[in-house]
Amino acid sequence: MTLGEHDPLCINTIRILAVDATFKANSGHPGMPMGMAPVSHVLFNKFMKFNPKNPDWLNRDRFVLSNGHGCMLQYAMLHLFGYDLSLDDLKAFRAVGSKTPGHPECRDTPGVEITTGPLGQGFANSVGLAIAQTHTAAVFNKPGYDLVNNHTYVYLGDGCLMEGITAETASLAGHLKLGNLIAIYDDNHISIDGDTARAFTEDVNKRFEAYGWHTQHVKDGDHDLAGIERAIAAARAVTDKPSLIKLTTTIGFGSKLQGTGDVHGNPLKEDDCKAVKKKFGFHAESHFEVPPLVYEIYGKTAAKGVAAEQEWNKLFDKYKKEFPKEGAELERRLAKKLPEGWEKNLPIYKSTDSAIASRKLSETVLNKLESILPELMGGSADLTGSNLTRTKNAVDFQHPSTKIGDYSGRYIRYGVREHGMAGVMNGISAYGTLIPFGGTFLNFVSYGSGAVRLSALSHHHVIYVATHDSIGLGEDGPTHQPIETLAHFRALPNCMVWRPADGNETSAAYYVALISKNTPSILALSRQNLPQIEGSSMELAIKGGYVCLEEQGADITLVSTGSEVCLCIEASVWLKEKKGIKARVVSMPCWEVFDAQDKEYRLSVLPDGKPILSVEVLSTLGWERYAHEQFGLNRFGASGPYKDVYARFEFTAEGISKRAIATIDFWKGVQNIRSPLNKAFTQII
Amino acid sequence: MTLGEHDPLCINTIRILAVDATFKANSGHPGMPMGMAPVSHVLFNKFMKFNPKNPDWLNRDRFVLSNGHGCMLQYAMLHLFGYDLSLDDLKAFRAVGSKTPGHPECRDTPGVEITTGPLGQGFANSVGLAIAQTHTAAVFNKPGYDLVNNHTYVYLGDGCLMEGITAETASLAGHLKLGNLIAIYDDNHISIDGDTARAFTEDVNKRFEAYGWHTQHVKDGDHDLAGIERAIAAARAVTDKPSLIKLTTTIGFGSKLQGTGDVHGNPLKEDDCKAVKKKFGFHAESHFEVPPLVYEIYGKTAAKGVAAEQEWNKLFDKYKKEFPKEGAELERRLAKKLPEGWEKNLPIYKSTDSAIASRKLSETVLNKLESILPELMGGSADLTGSNLTRTKNAVDFQHPSTKIGDYSGRYIRYGVREHGMAGVMNGISAYGTLIPFGGTFLNFVSYGSGAVRLSALSHHHVIYVATHDSIGLGEDGPTHQPIETLAHFRALPNCMVWRPADGNETSAAYYVALISKNTPSILALSRQNLPQIEGSSMELAIKGGYVCLEEQGADITLVSTGSEVCLCIEASVWLKEKKGIKARVVSMPCWEVFDAQDKEYRLSVLPDGKPILSVEVLSTLGWERYAHEQFGLNRFGASGPYKDVYARFEFTAEGISKRAIATIDFWKGVQNIRSPLNKAFTQII
Repeated sequence: MTLGEHDPLCINTIRILAVDATFKANSGHPGMPMGMAPVSHVLFNKFMKFNPKNPDWLNRDRFVLSNGHGCMLQYAMLHLFGYDLSLDDLKAFRAVGSKTPGHPECRDTPGVEITTGPLGQGFANSVGLAIAQTHTAAVFNKPGYDLVNNHTYVYLGDGCLMEGITAETASLAGHLKLGNLIAIYDDNHISIDGDTARAFTEDVNKRFEAYGWHTQHVKDGDHDLAGIERAIAAARAVTDKPSLIKLTTTIGFGSKLQGTGDVHGNPLKEDDCKAVKKKFGFHAESHFEVPPLVYEIYGKTAAKGVAAEQEWNKLFDKYKKEFPKEGAELERRLAKKLPEGWEKNLPIYKSTDSAIASRKLSETVLNKLESILPELMGGSADLTGSNLTRTKNAVDFQHPSTKIGDYSGRYIRYGVREHGMAGVMNGISAYGTLIPFGGTFLNFVSYGSGAVRLSALSHHHVIYVATHDSIGLGEDGPTHQPIETLAHFRALPNCMVWRPADGNETSAAYYVALISKNTPSILALSRQNLPQIEGSSMELAIKGGYVCLEEQGADITLVSTGSEVCLCIEASVWLKEKKGIKARVVSMPCWEVFDAQDKEYRLSVLPDGKPILSVEVLSTLGWERYAHEQFGLNRFGASGPYKDVYARFEFTAEGISKRAIATIDFWKGVQNIRSPLNKAFTQII
Repeated sequence: MTLGEHDPLCINTIRILAVDATFKANSGHPGMPMGMAPVSHVLFNKFMKFNPKNPDWLNRDRFVLSNGHGCMLQYAMLHLFGYDLSLDDLKAFRAVGSKTPGHPECRDTPGVEITTGPLGQGFANSVGLAIAQTHTAAVFNKPGYDLVNNHTYVYLGDGCLMEGITAETASLAGHLKLGNLIAIYDDNHISIDGDTARAFTEDVNKRFEAYGWHTQHVKDGDHDLAGIERAIAAARAVTDKPSLIKLTTTIGFGSKLQGTGDVHGNPLKEDDCKAVKKKFGFHAESHFEVPPLVYEIYGKTAAKGVAAEQEWNKLFDKYKKEFPKEGAELERRLAKKLPEGWEKNLPIYKSTDSAIASRKLSETVLNKLESILPELMGGSADLTGSNLTRTKNAVDFQHPSTKIGDYSGRYIRYGVREHGMAGVMNGISAYGTLIPFGGTFLNFVSYGSGAVRLSALSHHHVIYVATHDSIGLGEDGPTHQPIETLAHFRALPNCMVWRPADGNETSAAYYVALISKNTPSILALSRQNLPQIEGSSMELAIKGGYVCLEEQGADITLVSTGSEVCLCIEASVWLKEKKGIKARVVSMPCWEVFDAQDKEYRLSVLPDGKPILSVEVLSTLGWERYAHEQFGLNRFGASGPYKDVYARFEFTAEGISKRAIATIDFWKGVQNIRSPLNKAFTQII
């Protein structure tokens, strides 16, 4: 059953590479790679389908290291199989600028599918990868053309299993009966605090059975290669359930400290390094030793992968001839090209059109794009009717046995699992054939902060449809009304936060979100109706900020977003009529996009010479960047009908005007007022 | 077994109050109260121990409505039992300024223990309440004095059960064998997206058994009052496991739309309201009708509660005589008074003391306070050795059968459950006898955002020990290095974010955090060593910001926090020596506390006349509030030894100096430079 007599040599090579790299870096986690080397040897050589020469091959099996601190395991495997990762790269483990950072990052290392380390994320991503595979297969596979049939394998440890995001997505994966998902649980009884007896004594397999998973237990993961192989084979044979293999291992296998917490997050001591090498038959004084035989054995597996892709390419060529439309469509998606002219479907509004909530405007966009962009895969964390994320013709993504959808469906019922939804969307995006969007209330995007951060860091193309974006949600009250949320995500690098004021801006938000392949977007949308702004247009809004009400010789600029833009326009009228004050109004739906415009343009929008007042019914934090004075809400909101709540906090034409007057008065004495856009130096990028 | 012939009248009164209040507000959730009225009638009248005249009685049973959208159920119960909540208050449901907001808020409504609504939080809080009760009992109960023996009851719905935070804390509660915790699951098969068949098909009871819970199923929660009573009694009889009672109910029981999603989050239509009233024997045209008999029956239960507290007060009086020390200690804690002179234990440092990481300084504080503040209950989300949260003499809070701790222990092994830890700490704080602190990496406090937000909104006295606070953590890399995190929590109202620069500032942070009874604190602490700042002192640092290096006739002010303060001082030296430039340095460890000082003081720290440059190796967002120019990191970090990472991003004496020079040059032409502290108007509070 096993690979052969050289199994120990291969397995120990992986271990030694992890020992040496962490020792050289004087930092890192040798324990997990030493414990999980046996299963990795079996999995990668016996089961996994991959081509080291083309890490982007669509039908490759996906491997996710959810316990990402064990990344030296993954780096060692990638190196041995001939990915573009040299022994020198391993020697540069955890050095600035290396291809081998402290946790696996998909942007740094060829062959790393998914950035992991924050625990639980990788598991959630693997559920997303499995969903994407299942859906892509349902759409593109044809009789005789099993074009998309890859598995997703994920390693996870006790830490991942304690995280809520894992629980959320394991429950979802069980519900969805994702047969191509196989999770391997490194049951080593150790977490950073020591023995898991201190905090984690649940019956994991029973829990996963309760979720609807197929479960197994391999009791000697250190030696029982045949058992590992049987378990993986059995997991693959179960096609209507995801599988969990609990694999009992010894952390730091071979070290003097094996089986203890001391070997989890610290390199081995020098004498231990030497002893391990000796024990495994390696040269005690050598470093990064790879026996040529191991390269040879792993090279054979790699060669099989090269051949497998060649076979697949032939199949796909044939497919394209027989199904030219589907073939072209799949190629388009893999190239991440949107269909020619797709943007013409985005609705355009006149100022005479009726007032509409931006969540409703978002729904209209999604309906318009539904047929033209079949790569859009939507969903909601159990707020479908509130987020308005489900298009008219949507089919639910469900196992066909449920009779309430099928795997070709593009609408995911995420359940009340915001963090899980965000992690799953990251995985769907990473698969390569889909663009996911998902809805929840803006306030509850924060539940998913950990995964949103990885959307940004990993450059996932993900759209968060975040409705009920302020105290304007009204009666649900302070528990549901975001205050700090936009500041939070505006501070997150590589994340676009949109808060459109009307229909044209909502179309612009979707336009930019959809063409930005490497950046997630959060669309903050109103529950309440918003009038169409007279000066708005898609062309202007895609610059992130623009003048929507110009006034020659203005005394002040009001800069605002979303539902407060129309209030600023009302305030401008109020100021002129009651006080003879001229106020121009700027709408700035997306800071990040505005910041990317040239300075000349930005200064034309927020010019020198007159004071600028920002108006947004959320935390003022950060508005100092664009405005001399800030009107906002640096406290929690209130429960009540939204107009009462707005009035309570003076977000009315008069309340804004009062602050505009105070601003003008306060800045009267200052000569040559500088726009806050002028800065002494630029930030490091 | 049941209460008697008037059960239906009582139950239907609750239902009708929920129907009328949501109808009048034209907003709210009638379905859950209508379904859960029967169990509430039984639970509150047959089992629960509470005194409506004193909602603060220590030994009351705690009731938590984790599915907080059903708050009209709770408001109706509180009203009927005679809490300070009138029928007029119910009529003002969801109106601005009322005592009956859209979700239960502990600060608004007498008898509401816990602010709920964001799903899963209430469940986590209930685990915290149960931990606090168990610990308080272990410390204060004596033979013959079962002083603290209350139960914690929590309702939760499908939504709560899908949330990760519930999974995390259910696993923890099972591990800890919290016998006084009883959860009642409203199994109504409906969530906002409709039938739970769409997203939630796991076997909940089996999952909870896997966690180590005792589970039961009452199949007819609409009618089987005897079964409900038996189940609660059985749950109470199991004292070494938490209990889950799955209660199958009909959402919106009595409505034409009962059992459907339409009755979840929308008031009943007028005709339906009338029909329900008629069906239940109420006047179809009446509103908020409470039959006198119901007041009478509920009044009897209330009277029993009054008597129970009187009995308890007698017991406590006797206890105080027999155990005067313990009695005084418990009274002190309930009064939320810290022991006289406790603050003298906080360590003070001289500038000649050695450089120490602020996480280590935090450990020293905790050790110094361990014996003087026995109300401190610590823990870590499986990063004990990194967070340094465990004091020398700490005993783990564990079930005694584990032999690795006992219930008098004050150190909680939270496992890798950051969101759960935050929610549990909120519950511990709410209990009234303890001040919880908990550690994780600053970056992973974000995993707990949903609960941190409720720490702030609910005024919980909770301390987050957030170590590894920047790129200074080094090798773990961008996945672990916070960038946006401080901006996020600085934007959160009623949350103190501290980033101390040295030992005195760390002591100051703990001092303010511990005396601030109604505000949570996040202490951002370094992994790397920090020198003791020459100009620092506790007295200065407790102002939130102060001048640590004064320079007469300075050309610029550098304002900084934490690990960058010493770099600013180095830059000041560099600037003087190399360029003859005078730079004064301000340390501002806590914005929120600095903002609370009078303006004169604040302007003495950040004065008019010269430019101000902020220096912090995180997002610059918000620093515009204090500084004209900002040097920070508006991108993700890098993996490597921390000094290399700092150098990569030019956070060195020279890199800071370069920006200081650019700042001085840029502001040279501006006359009468105003400190950013000067504002045209104050924000609404």
